[in-house]
Amino acid sequence: MTVIDDVACLESEVRVYSRSWPDIFTRASGDRIHAADGSVYLDFFMGAGALNYGHANPLLKAPLIDYLTADGIVHSLDMMTEAKSDFLRSFQELVLRPRHLDYKVQFTGPTGTNAVEAALKLARKVTGRETVVAFTRSFHGVSLGALAVTANADKRAGAGVPLDHVLRIPYDGFGQHGVSGLDLLDDLIRDTGSGISLPAAVIVETVQGEGGVNIAGAEWLQRLAAMCSKWDILLVVDDIQAGCGRTGGFFSFEDAGILPDIVCLSKSISGYGLPMALTLFRRELDVWNPGEHNGTFRGSNPAFVTATAALRTYWSDEVLHKEVVAKGELVSDYLTAVCSRYPGVVHRGRGLFWGVEFAEPGLARRVSAAAYEDGLLVETSGPDDEVVKLLPSLLISPADLRAGLRILGGAIDRTMA
Amino acid sequence: MTVIDDVACLESEVRVYSRSWPDIFTRASGDRIHAADGSVYLDFFMGAGALNYGHANPLLKAPLIDYLTADGIVHSLDMMTEAKSDFLRSFQELVLRPRHLDYKVQFTGPTGTNAVEAALKLARKVTGRETVVAFTRSFHGVSLGALAVTANADKRAGAGVPLDHVLRIPYDGFGQHGVSGLDLLDDLIRDTGSGISLPAAVIVETVQGEGGVNIAGAEWLQRLAAMCSKWDILLVVDDIQAGCGRTGGFFSFEDAGILPDIVCLSKSISGYGLPMALTLFRRELDVWNPGEHNGTFRGSNPAFVTATAALRTYWSDEVLHKEVVAKGELVSDYLTAVCSRYPGVVHRGRGLFWGVEFAEPGLARRVSAAAYEDGLLVETSGPDDEVVKLLPSLLISPADLRAGLRILGGAIDRTMA
Amino acid sequence: MTVIDDVACLESEVRVYSRSWPDIFTRASGDRIHAADGSVYLDFFMGAGALNYGHANPLLKAPLIDYLTADGIVHSLDMMTEAKSDFLRSFQELVLRPRHLDYKVQFTGPTGTNAVEAALKLARKVTGRETVVAFTRSFHGVSLGALAVTANADKRAGAGVPLDHVLRIPYDGFGQHGVSGLDLLDDLIRDTGSGISLPAAVIVETVQGEGGVNIAGAEWLQRLAAMCSKWDILLVVDDIQAGCGRTGGFFSFEDAGILPDIVCLSKSISGYGLPMALTLFRRELDVWNPGEHNGTFRGSNPAFVTATAALRTYWSDEVLHKEVVAKGELVSDYLTAVCSRYPGVVHRGRGLFWGVEFAEPGLARRVSAAAYEDGLLVETSGPDDEVVKLLPSLLISPADLRAGLRILGGAIDRTMA
Amino acid sequence: MTVIDDVACLESEVRVYSRSWPDIFTRASGDRIHAADGSVYLDFFMGAGALNYGHANPLLKAPLIDYLTADGIVHSLDMMTEAKSDFLRSFQELVLRPRHLDYKVQFTGPTGTNAVEAALKLARKVTGRETVVAFTRSFHGVSLGALAVTANADKRAGAGVPLDHVLRIPYDGFGQHGVSGLDLLDDLIRDTGSGISLPAAVIVETVQGEGGVNIAGAEWLQRLAAMCSKWDILLVVDDIQAGCGRTGGFFSFEDAGILPDIVCLSKSISGYGLPMALTLFRRELDVWNPGEHNGTFRGSNPAFVTATAALRTYWSDEVLHKEVVAKGELVSDYLTAVCSRYPGVVHRGRGLFWGVEFAEPGLARRVSAAAYEDGLLVETSGPDDEVVKLLPSLLISPADLRAGLRILGGAIDRTMA
Repeated sequence: MTVIDDVACLESEVRVYSRSWPDIFTRASGDRIHAADGSVYLDFFMGAGALNYGHANPLLKAPLIDYLTADGIVHSLDMMTEAKSDFLRSFQELVLRPRHLDYKVQFTGPTGTNAVEAALKLARKVTGRETVVAFTRSFHGVSLGALAVTANADKRAGAGVPLDHVLRIPYDGFGQHGVSGLDLLDDLIRDTGSGISLPAAVIVETVQGEGGVNIAGAEWLQRLAAMCSKWDILLVVDDIQAGCGRTGGFFSFEDAGILPDIVCLSKSISGYGLPMALTLFRRELDVWNPGEHNGTFRGSNPAFVTATAALRTYWSDEVLHKEVVAKGELVSDYLTAVCSRYPGVVHRGRGLFWGVEFAEPGLARRVSAAAYEDGLLVETSGPDDEVVKLLPSLLISPADLRAGLRILGGAIDRTMA
Repeated sequence: MTVIDDVACLESEVRVYSRSWPDIFTRASGDRIHAADGSVYLDFFMGAGALNYGHANPLLKAPLIDYLTADGIVHSLDMMTEAKSDFLRSFQELVLRPRHLDYKVQFTGPTGTNAVEAALKLARKVTGRETVVAFTRSFHGVSLGALAVTANADKRAGAGVPLDHVLRIPYDGFGQHGVSGLDLLDDLIRDTGSGISLPAAVIVETVQGEGGVNIAGAEWLQRLAAMCSKWDILLVVDDIQAGCGRTGGFFSFEDAGILPDIVCLSKSISGYGLPMALTLFRRELDVWNPGEHNGTFRGSNPAFVTATAALRTYWSDEVLHKEVVAKGELVSDYLTAVCSRYPGVVHRGRGLFWGVEFAEPGLARRVSAAAYEDGLLVETSGPDDEVVKLLPSLLISPADLRAGLRILGGAIDRTMA
Repeated sequence: MTVIDDVACLESEVRVYSRSWPDIFTRASGDRIHAADGSVYLDFFMGAGALNYGHANPLLKAPLIDYLTADGIVHSLDMMTEAKSDFLRSFQELVLRPRHLDYKVQFTGPTGTNAVEAALKLARKVTGRETVVAFTRSFHGVSLGALAVTANADKRAGAGVPLDHVLRIPYDGFGQHGVSGLDLLDDLIRDTGSGISLPAAVIVETVQGEGGVNIAGAEWLQRLAAMCSKWDILLVVDDIQAGCGRTGGFFSFEDAGILPDIVCLSKSISGYGLPMALTLFRRELDVWNPGEHNGTFRGSNPAFVTATAALRTYWSDEVLHKEVVAKGELVSDYLTAVCSRYPGVVHRGRGLFWGVEFAEPGLARRVSAAAYEDGLLVETSGPDDEVVKLLPSLLISPADLRAGLRILGGAIDRTMA
Repeated sequence: MTVIDDVACLESEVRVYSRSWPDIFTRASGDRIHAADGSVYLDFFMGAGALNYGHANPLLKAPLIDYLTADGIVHSLDMMTEAKSDFLRSFQELVLRPRHLDYKVQFTGPTGTNAVEAALKLARKVTGRETVVAFTRSFHGVSLGALAVTANADKRAGAGVPLDHVLRIPYDGFGQHGVSGLDLLDDLIRDTGSGISLPAAVIVETVQGEGGVNIAGAEWLQRLAAMCSKWDILLVVDDIQAGCGRTGGFFSFEDAGILPDIVCLSKSISGYGLPMALTLFRRELDVWNPGEHNGTFRGSNPAFVTATAALRTYWSDEVLHKEVVAKGELVSDYLTAVCSRYPGVVHRGRGLFWGVEFAEPGLARRVSAAAYEDGLLVETSGPDDEVVKLLPSLLISPADLRAGLRILGGAIDRTMA
């Protein structure tokens, strides 16, 4: 502890995870992460969804090291490189074409918030409108454009200036009164005396990770997509946390059968935990002027190399998709059993994206702390940290998955006792 | 050409450099970058300042590959890792302490724009004020918070919403009428009837790279710093492009002897072209709540590894600093000779950060294109792309430096002929 | 017609009523208004609610002429005058004290929009918050602060800049889906992850005149008031059109038994059609600095003189209140009979504030035009001018009231035929 | 004193003048105002410029009383009335045509702030741009749109929300450093990298009354007008305080020979202290939709009656103009003599619009208080109330003018002693 405190005093108070898990971590592979004191943790946090294929996946690591060894280009802004070209072709062949998605690819600055900033700019430019519809409990990033559509009060308070041009609507299942956000939106748009002008876009997560693992139903998403289409509003899916296979399919919106106008990807798109982000949009929306949105690291080639390897390895067939669904059922069964034991504890999830919500304040944090003591990393989410969020690797073995769930279950039992 | 066009149709129209330099680049080391067709270019563009130590610097590459090979942690959000700890200690020992800077370090999302967003949020939180002073011709990034302080009209037009809470002031030397921005600022702040409320902060680049290589004089910076101190306004130096040795010292503001309250670093801080960004601030300004500003990639450990290696290799003594100054004089001498041949062509620079401005519209772009034909990559900057900007590696040999300058000189001669 | 066109070409295209009623009006008394060509109209428009006591009411006219004849002070900004002092005492004695309202009185610029601007400023100052809740179909004025809380799309489009800091909520009965605005508001405020910050105030009309004569139920108002009290949000009632006896009691909110924190009055407060406006607020909210909100005409003494006379004449007892209620029943009976004859035609109202809504677009305007041909002035309201709005004088005789209703009924019959 | 305190407790703390002059005023005529205790004051305040023709001018009072007696229409929104028609024809014949001004007339809500709100909306609509240039020390009103262009810090602080879309530029003579606002504006507009987008309009007072009687030189105004014309920016002159003869000509901008695109009038336009306001604009700028800007009291006929009488009485020839200039010289001579006696006391003015500035804080208020004791009402202005502002009636006799000046001179002598 003294060791970490000694270093920590050099770093800003803004840090979070080094407080929950006060180790100095050293190396990691697959589902396990090692600390300097010899501790080993099973990781159900997985970089908040940035490590869907596990730590230091050897199938991605090899081409990465080969590339670096051969002096492959590392940094190139938006010059065309072999690594980028390979990625583009693989993404076209393995992701877009099979799903009949005629999207152009924009390489934004390599962070989710930047992909969202680009999406909102483009939506406003295409439509000439300013308002963007965003949902309660949403999280889209903390740079000012993305923060304006983010719902969390603490994050918003950090802005220091008003966050405008956003129409906030209840998400599927939000609130105690069962107000339908889509009914509301429909009424507000229909009536010229509603006080609301026609929005440029709707931005939505199909599963709200930071907001507490809230899940939009397929019918809800379909109705939302139909309303956007009807009123000529662009539908932006922020698939930064839920995409890249987290819910089963490559995109989280595939199950609902909807076609977003714009999609944001980041977190696990590089596959190896390297910074990378994409904004995808229908070809006819590509009204950008050259350089109108830029950024120094918008072409980070090592990430392209691992991203290409990840696509080729895991998205050439349906195997991973099916395994994620199967492992999701395993999680569901386990959590159903655990939660049935305690009132005020409920679970929900899709694929390998799960949350356990505790009605009593403070419990989720205590469960997370107890799990950490037993060698499992799981984080909390939700506006009051009331949900334990499970984000295991998509490649996790059933044995490790069960091991982690058992630790979690034990932590819940201990906390609730 | 067919090859790049074929791939380019998958990528958004927002791309820029792949248009100026329509190659597919493959590998790079030191000062040279290779294309798929066998062409080799001398690189005076260097990732727009992100590659101050050259491409694939072997002294950084070795520890990076070692780290990856040993399954060192890649992605860890803001958990403490060995790689981060090493970086923090080295940064403290080699950068901050020798310069008597008692700064805390915030690891923001790994892009310059994110470091700026964090700086502005913090300044507004500390002061409880909203307005930020920004200068004509400034560039600080394109996410909405950073874009608001950026001056370029095309970039700003991309916002799609008003960009507020900024007081725009002429930079040192701006404009045809010689209006003093600092006189103006002083008058506006002094007078309670000026219509301007007390700003939270001033954000300034000591050299405006994107704005056309405009250079703030030491006295101007000193007066600005004194005014900030007097009026209790926070001084933010955006050292993203000018820092990390580009002007000689590690920080570009060292020569002026000023002490900023907040400093933004990115681009060359990782040393290897990997995404990384820091926001530094005086210890007593660290009023962040945990997680108040966050981001998935705010702890990219491979970048910490190369950053640490770069600090240890190049900033343990004064050698690099002196070499940059010496090579800067070489550039200055060469450009003085070239520019003296043509009316309407002027040059200016500090360290290895130089610009050649052409009064006649279009000439700078033509010079850049001509240099490319002759095997040199140099970009243009300024609101009308009227300046050829030189950003060679700080480690470039005098021979290569002269070679590049000769190509540039030839390109100018050909263009002006 | 030539005459009015000749003059009209000097006046801006922004004019409205001179288009609907292309006469040159000359004089008016009681319920009738005369035109230059000798036409006489029964007036159910009554200055859009600014002439509740009829045109040129002799009981107000006499003291006004006496005052002007005696060189009583006309203009005095916010100096104390005898006329103002008399008004304040009468308002205290006849309006506030009997209703147990401990309000301070602010004399704002003499327009409704200015009273609203003052109310919103004060609410924001008292609470230190920015957001104001406003309802669909609301109208509060067209200066930028009031326009931001106004709902009408055409009016808002006139702003030319974004209208921010407002949370829009469905009014009682709004929309096709029956979304409860108060349920929504409750959910949004309760959840710290809703994306909505705690509002400074709610601004509401008990009857939305411009919005189409929409009526908030007493229970709805009570729940709204209770929510405001619970969450420490200021409740602002804009009683500009519905106050001064229009719904029976002096204030329109008396029936619901609620106690607003702030009340805006204008239109009929002077009683004689002279410009005057008040913002009332609970004594403890009076945190204004001297002159923090000002305006040249905030003390128009002729208006104080007629306002005092109106209070003394009509608000010393319950007679007018009862008469308004009784005459309202007469209107209700008549409209019930008329509307029962036609599908798609409904009526609603309180006191002498009534609307007849026509489902078919354009009908309400045609009814208004037909009534004008037959000698009755009635205006339309609602976002698509779909409602004929009746605002007869509160003093109208039953005979004239019936006469006007008969003309309206005939106009409806003719239009629907 | 007890009497006023007793009433004052009913009125908001926002009141100002009733504090400086704690009388209850009763009647007024010509240059004198009477209090309930029998005191009589010579009035050099004159409704802050709303009473240019004195109190209760009998030549305006007679037609007003006749009109009211005959039941002339008082309130009519924007219906056409005989009184409005008469005013429009007189304004056309006596003001616009002789000055070759082809303006349309908009009757806004009857306050200066509303005329400014309309002007800014129209300028933004015509140009499709958002930014308006406003000057240091300006005052244009306190509703949010007008307040955004107002400079005074206390007034702006009352907004409670950010005041945006304004570019603030130094007024002629502003500041200690002599920065030229017009040089600055020219540089900012010329350079596409300045960070400033092309403004919709410039709003300017030729004399800044509230800002401390600052006077724009004719050449400065001419250069400003030329710049607006060159860059296609609309020039709005706020002539609310300086117009209606206060500086000599009917419009204050006549002397400079400039042609504004939009002009705001209020204060003395009714001539009798009754609320009235106009926005004038070049015929081709009249792009308003019907009702796009409205307001209940935009047609206050008693004000039209006195306004018409004032135009016919005082603006049919050049007599008043010449008298104002002559009396202005008398004021100038007197103040020159007074100010020469004291260092740190300077005066400036045009026509009958004068200010005496005291360098030492608090002195101006003390002079104003001393003058009040001696029977003269004069107010202070400027951001720190550092200027005594003289606004005598334009019709004042030389004897009364001298009497008032003598009281003022005595108050200065006493205060400086």
